Amino acid sequence: MEFVEPLALQSGASVRGYTLAYETYGTLNAARSNAVLVCHALNASHHVAGTYAGQDRSEGWWDNMIGPGKPVDTDRFFVIGINNLGSCFGSTGPMHTNPDTGRVYGADFPVVTVEDWVNAQARLLDRLGIDTLAAVMGGSLGGMQALGWALQHPQRVRHAVVIASAPNLNAENIAFNEVARRAIVTDPDFHGGHFYEHGVVPKRGLRIARMIGHITYLSDDVMNEKFGRQLRAPTLPASRGSLPPEGAPAPWGGPAAPDAYRYSTQEVEFQIESYLRYQGDKFSEYFDANTYLLITRALDYFDPARAFNGNLAQALARATARFLLVSFTTDWRFSPARSREIVKALLDNRRDVAYAEIDAPHGHDAFLLEDARYLNVVRSYFEKVASDAGPPQGARAPSGGSAVHEVTSVGATFP
Amino acid sequence: MEFVEPLALQSGASVRGYTLAYETYGTLNAARSNAVLVCHALNASHHVAGTYAGQDRSEGWWDNMIGPGKPVDTDRFFVIGINNLGSCFGSTGPMHTNPDTGRVYGADFPVVTVEDWVNAQARLLDRLGIDTLAAVMGGSLGGMQALGWALQHPQRVRHAVVIASAPNLNAENIAFNEVARRAIVTDPDFHGGHFYEHGVVPKRGLRIARMIGHITYLSDDVMNEKFGRQLRAPTLPASRGSLPPEGAPAPWGGPAAPDAYRYSTQEVEFQIESYLRYQGDKFSEYFDANTYLLITRALDYFDPARAFNGNLAQALARATARFLLVSFTTDWRFSPARSREIVKALLDNRRDVAYAEIDAPHGHDAFLLEDARYLNVVRSYFEKVASDAGPPQGARAPSGGSAVHEVTSVGATFP
Repeated sequence: MEFVEPLALQSGASVRGYTLAYETYGTLNAARSNAVLVCHALNASHHVAGTYAGQDRSEGWWDNMIGPGKPVDTDRFFVIGINNLGSCFGSTGPMHTNPDTGRVYGADFPVVTVEDWVNAQARLLDRLGIDTLAAVMGGSLGGMQALGWALQHPQRVRHAVVIASAPNLNAENIAFNEVARRAIVTDPDFHGGHFYEHGVVPKRGLRIARMIGHITYLSDDVMNEKFGRQLRAPTLPASRGSLPPEGAPAPWGGPAAPDAYRYSTQEVEFQIESYLRYQGDKFSEYFDANTYLLITRALDYFDPARAFNGNLAQALARATARFLLVSFTTDWRFSPARSREIVKALLDNRRDVAYAEIDAPHGHDAFLLEDARYLNVVRSYFEKVASDAGPPQGARAPSGGSAVHEVTSVGATFP
Repeated sequence: MEFVEPLALQSGASVRGYTLAYETYGTLNAARSNAVLVCHALNASHHVAGTYAGQDRSEGWWDNMIGPGKPVDTDRFFVIGINNLGSCFGSTGPMHTNPDTGRVYGADFPVVTVEDWVNAQARLLDRLGIDTLAAVMGGSLGGMQALGWALQHPQRVRHAVVIASAPNLNAENIAFNEVARRAIVTDPDFHGGHFYEHGVVPKRGLRIARMIGHITYLSDDVMNEKFGRQLRAPTLPASRGSLPPEGAPAPWGGPAAPDAYRYSTQEVEFQIESYLRYQGDKFSEYFDANTYLLITRALDYFDPARAFNGNLAQALARATARFLLVSFTTDWRFSPARSREIVKALLDNRRDVAYAEIDAPHGHDAFLLEDARYLNVVRSYFEKVASDAGPPQGARAPSGGSAVHEVTSVGATFP
């Protein structure tokens, strides 16, 4: 969808003449009260569910969560997937032309924040004629957007579903982002972010960034289980992996090697190396380097408590939505403790909060994977969302003081 | 010291005409029974203690541990620091000339393993006329060498002190090493490892490698405490940091910035970014890229249980030394669980083991830092080493069956 009116950004800059790519699933009801907005994380898009006609492998990134009869049931809800400004999957981003200069933005694309994305998403809803969301949901950086919605547009959100997320990044999170960015920026093919004009792509940097990312998405345990110290087959190219993830073939690996080291510093020796190189290579073929910088910076900057001297409870006082928070025990990128900070701050404000801490082995990646308990928690919560056809909580209890205090914990105890 | 006889390596290759740099502290006694060999980790050398005359800042890397009156007391012990083959601090390595070709080795320097280093160290001891070590000790990769000594030369080691180490790397450890190596190898200035001839250094790759390393050396907690989400001063160059580590000035930082984001993807915004960039820059000025590849590969390859189908108890059966193992609660690179694997395998063989799990906040770095409990554990253990003037345990109990079973735990419970 095209937007002509400029969007003022948090940085003070603005974007004019931009496009937002989006998809919808299901049917908006007559009351326009069944809309669910799904916000994406780093490496995803508006294509959250289903497949495109004739493209078997075009499954949406949250297809196990969203669809007919699924936890977020598109037979009942009108689901909207949106691609954020600055991304590289259809919405206006660094590879598009800057209308002010007639040149490709490149590194000149302005820094966008979670708050800016929420404002852009709100404009899209305006155009779709949707005043109030039944729910806004997302995982990781998407969860930050869901939280942002509850803060920036409290009257427009009945439920916020915040999965595997955090109230801000900690120093280690920022550190990993920074190493990834330095790998991209110092790649000679980056050309200060204007590599498009040179007909090259900073693939070395993108590969390194993705490899680092993958390490932080997985838990130590699942890495040991999937790869351990298994050696890679001595012959290339690989056919099928001996340790396919989730039962699928592993395109990065060959059959397990005979039990012998090759004693090389540069050749692949261990399966985990093949896996990471494969993931890095694949990513560098399609992801935009400037988008990577922008999206990791949006993660770094998000910090709603910042304007309140770090007091998250004060920061969340304006949120009137009901909340579901979900975290995963082995997620060391956004640990359960970070979700609990949000839960506690909401409870301090006497808000409705359901919280599930899922005992899952997969680390941060768990929010995208099959896990019956996790999917059932979301399914149950959306039963509640469906039955809650009333106006937002804030409209019923303007003082915020009469909200029902409720905590649900699944899979672990909330202290 | 020069060695003319070729050293056969585990890979099948060999090195001829090599030099090993070493330093000694204290005096070898008449019985030649008070020698302690100190093995270094990735980024260290034979210079373990003291300062060089006229060079105030030339303190050895383990100066808090080793010296007169210190836990490893050089008034009682004859301490030997050695620089490993393939390193870049004096011993023969990739930047030296290959006598077979007359050209600088570069990437052609053969892969060296922990076992190879131990064999080279044993030759040095032969030349020094030292048959039996009172103790061999090291942290991290140095601890692997200490363990290797107890396995390869059991009759020459009375005590092995293995600190913050592991019986092998797990998949996540290998993964971090691999990303660091890929950053170096894909740096255009690497030139396939023969960058010396081109008069360049793959500094971009070395910087990324070091940044990744630093993240894994520190604990999440200490990163949050030292850096958190503090912004960096907007002006360069920096004078003194607002968050100096361990009370020292922080050369990477300026005073804390006013409470405002600058909204930039490439400029430094957070203190943690300054810190990592500074560490990366500094490292890239002095560390050799080929050495980095070799040393991380030595880490990857070490796995004494490998020849025993993963059975560590069987692998350690030949070790007859007495052991001190030390781990640190917040070390997520080589976690206490990894040290406990070694302890358990030694106990399965009814070996003498003292084990201390130190509750320290600093992560893997803790093994190099001041911590009274940690240093006292080592001090107490070396009292025992000093009083134990007898032959190695194995010589007394050749069957290995009569060793005293002893477990000491400090700071945490050994399950």
